[in-house]
Amino acid sequence: MLKVTLKKIAATLGVSTATVSKALKDYPDISEKTKKKVKSLAASLNYKPNSFAQSLRNQESKIIGLIIPTIVHHFFSNIIYGVIDSASEHGYLVITLQSNESYEDEKNKINLLIEKNVDGILLSLSDKTVNYKHINRLIDDGVPVVLYDKISRSVNCSKVIINDFAAAFNATQYLIDTGCKKIAHIRGPLKPQTTIDRFMGYKKALEVNNILFDDSLVYVSDSLSFENGYNIAPKIINDHTDVDAIFSFTDLVATGVLIRFKELGILVPEQISIIGFSNWFLSKITSPTLSTVDQPGYEMGRKAFTLLYNELNQIRNGEPIKHEIVEIATKVIPRNSTKPI
Amino acid sequence: MLKVTLKKIAATLGVSTATVSKALKDYPDISEKTKKKVKSLAASLNYKPNSFAQSLRNQESKIIGLIIPTIVHHFFSNIIYGVIDSASEHGYLVITLQSNESYEDEKNKINLLIEKNVDGILLSLSDKTVNYKHINRLIDDGVPVVLYDKISRSVNCSKVIINDFAAAFNATQYLIDTGCKKIAHIRGPLKPQTTIDRFMGYKKALEVNNILFDDSLVYVSDSLSFENGYNIAPKIINDHTDVDAIFSFTDLVATGVLIRFKELGILVPEQISIIGFSNWFLSKITSPTLSTVDQPGYEMGRKAFTLLYNELNQIRNGEPIKHEIVEIATKVIPRNSTKPI
Repeated sequence: MLKVTLKKIAATLGVSTATVSKALKDYPDISEKTKKKVKSLAASLNYKPNSFAQSLRNQESKIIGLIIPTIVHHFFSNIIYGVIDSASEHGYLVITLQSNESYEDEKNKINLLIEKNVDGILLSLSDKTVNYKHINRLIDDGVPVVLYDKISRSVNCSKVIINDFAAAFNATQYLIDTGCKKIAHIRGPLKPQTTIDRFMGYKKALEVNNILFDDSLVYVSDSLSFENGYNIAPKIINDHTDVDAIFSFTDLVATGVLIRFKELGILVPEQISIIGFSNWFLSKITSPTLSTVDQPGYEMGRKAFTLLYNELNQIRNGEPIKHEIVEIATKVIPRNSTKPI
Repeated sequence: MLKVTLKKIAATLGVSTATVSKALKDYPDISEKTKKKVKSLAASLNYKPNSFAQSLRNQESKIIGLIIPTIVHHFFSNIIYGVIDSASEHGYLVITLQSNESYEDEKNKINLLIEKNVDGILLSLSDKTVNYKHINRLIDDGVPVVLYDKISRSVNCSKVIINDFAAAFNATQYLIDTGCKKIAHIRGPLKPQTTIDRFMGYKKALEVNNILFDDSLVYVSDSLSFENGYNIAPKIINDHTDVDAIFSFTDLVATGVLIRFKELGILVPEQISIIGFSNWFLSKITSPTLSTVDQPGYEMGRKAFTLLYNELNQIRNGEPIKHEIVEIATKVIPRNSTKPI
C-alpha cells in the first residue's frame, strides 16, 4: 500500500519515488519547493509524513531475502548460517534463494522477493551480472539492499566486503617471506571484482618485492572446482620448471593442485609451496594441511544482516538512511603446504 | 481466516479441527452424523465445502518453511540446495531456520513459520526432541508437514528417509568382505533414530557373519566433529590392540580417526580399515581417500519438497491427503581407506 502511494505521488509530480520518500523525510538534498509539493499532495491523499513510520511498521513482513550465487560452497553455507542466526535474534525470518551465478536468475529472484513484500534484501552479485539497474531501481523504491562479498562500486548501498586486494597481497607476501621467488597465481573468472582484486593484490606484492610480473604465470580457473586445480597443476610445472610457489584464489582449486602434485611425486612445500584462499574446512585435513587466508563467512553473514537491520530501524524512525561499508578482517593461516618463515 | 473458521466449528461441536476438515471433505472414516453436523454449521457460517479449495488457493502464501537441525554440515547444505531448487521450479520460496538441535528452538521456529502463514513445513527432528505433540498439532490443524532424515515413527505424515539400518549393514558387510574380523563402531548420540539404526545395522552384519558382538568395541561420539574422531582413535587401539577395522557413523569423525592414525604411524588400510558415512566432499581428499556410504542430501531435499508439493495439490483439489514414505537409496563408495575385496 505504502509503495503504491509513494509511486502515485511520484508519477503525479513527475519525480522519482526516492525523491518523494526523501521529501517526506525532510532530506536536505531535496529543494523546499519539491518538499512542499510532495507534502501537499501526500496530505490530500491522506498520506502524512507523520504516518510514515507508523504505516511502515504495520506493513513490515519481518521477512528478508538472501540471495547467494551458489549454495554448495563452504563459504556461502557459513554466510547463510550467519544471516539466519543474526536475523533470528532480531525476530526476522530469511528466504534464501540462489542466483546460480546467472544475471537473469538474479533479477527474477529479486522480483519474487519483492512480490512477497520482504523488508529488505541481502545480495551477493552473480558472476554474470552485467548492469545494476535492477538493484538501483529497488533502492530507489525504498527497499533496503545490502551487498555482501561480490559487490559493485556502481551501486549506492550498504556493503560488507573483505579487502580481497589486501588479503591476496598478504598471502603472496607470506610466500615471499618464506623464500619463494617464482610464484604462479591461479585466478578465478575474469569478471567478479573479488577475483580481480585478488589478482591485483598478488601483482602488487610482486612489485613491492621487486619480482618481475610474468603474465604466463597467471592461470585462469573458470570455476571454483577441485577438478580445475587438478588439471591446471601439470600445466604449471610443464610451462615453468622452476616455479616454487602457487597462490590459488580458492582452497578448492588449491586442493586439486595439492592432490595432483602428490600423484606426480612433487613435494609440497619442499619443491613447491601452495597457499589457498577462504579457509574451507577441507584445508585443515588435506595432506599436507593447506596454508590459506581466512575469509570469515559466518561473521560476514551476521554483519550483512546487521547493516540491513540498521537501515530498517532508520526507515521505521523516519531517520535518513545511512549507508555503511564494512570491511571484515582476513588473516593468513600458515599450515604445512608452505615453508616456515 | 480459514483456520479460524475450522477451529470455531471444531470448538462449537467439540471435535478436532482434523475431524472438521475431514468431514467437509467427505472422508470415509467420519460418521455421517458428524459430517451432517459439521456441514450444517459450516453452511451457517457461510463456509461451504465447495469453497474450501477456492479459499485455500487464495490464501496460499507460496512460501514453505524448512527446519534443519544445524547448517554447517555438508549433508544439510545439500538438503537446503535440493529443497530450494525444487521449490523454485514450482514457484515456491523457502524460509530456512535452524533448530540448533534444540527441542525448544524447534517448537519456537515452527510457531514463527505458522505466524507467517507458510503453506507447509519440512522438518528434520532435533536430537533433543522428546515428544511430538507440537508436530501432531500442526498436522491436525491441516498444515502439511514432511519429515526428512531424522524422523519419528510416532508422527503420521509423509517422510523421506534413508534406510540407515541397511546402509550401515552394507558398510559393515563391506569391511567383512575385505577380510576384517574385529570391527569397532563409532556411533553417534544415543537418541536420534538414524544413529540407532546405524548401530543396529552394524550389529546385524556381525551376527549374520557369525562374528560375536562385543559391546566394548562400540564408542560413542556425542557430536559430529572431527575432534571427536581424533580423540577416540587412540582409545580404540589402546583398548583393542587387534582391531582391524572401524565403521564410523559419519565421515567427519572418521576423518579425525584417519588423521590421528597417520600421526601415530598406524597404516590405513594395511593395519586398520576405516569406513565413514555420508560421502562428504572431504572424504574424496583425505589421505588415503575415505571409503564411505553415499547419503544423497540433494536428492533427499528435492524429494521432501516434492512430497509436500503433492500434499498441497491434494488439499487444493479437495482430495484426501495421501502420506508417502520414500526411501532414498544409499550405496557403499569404496575408496582407499579400506582393502580391496
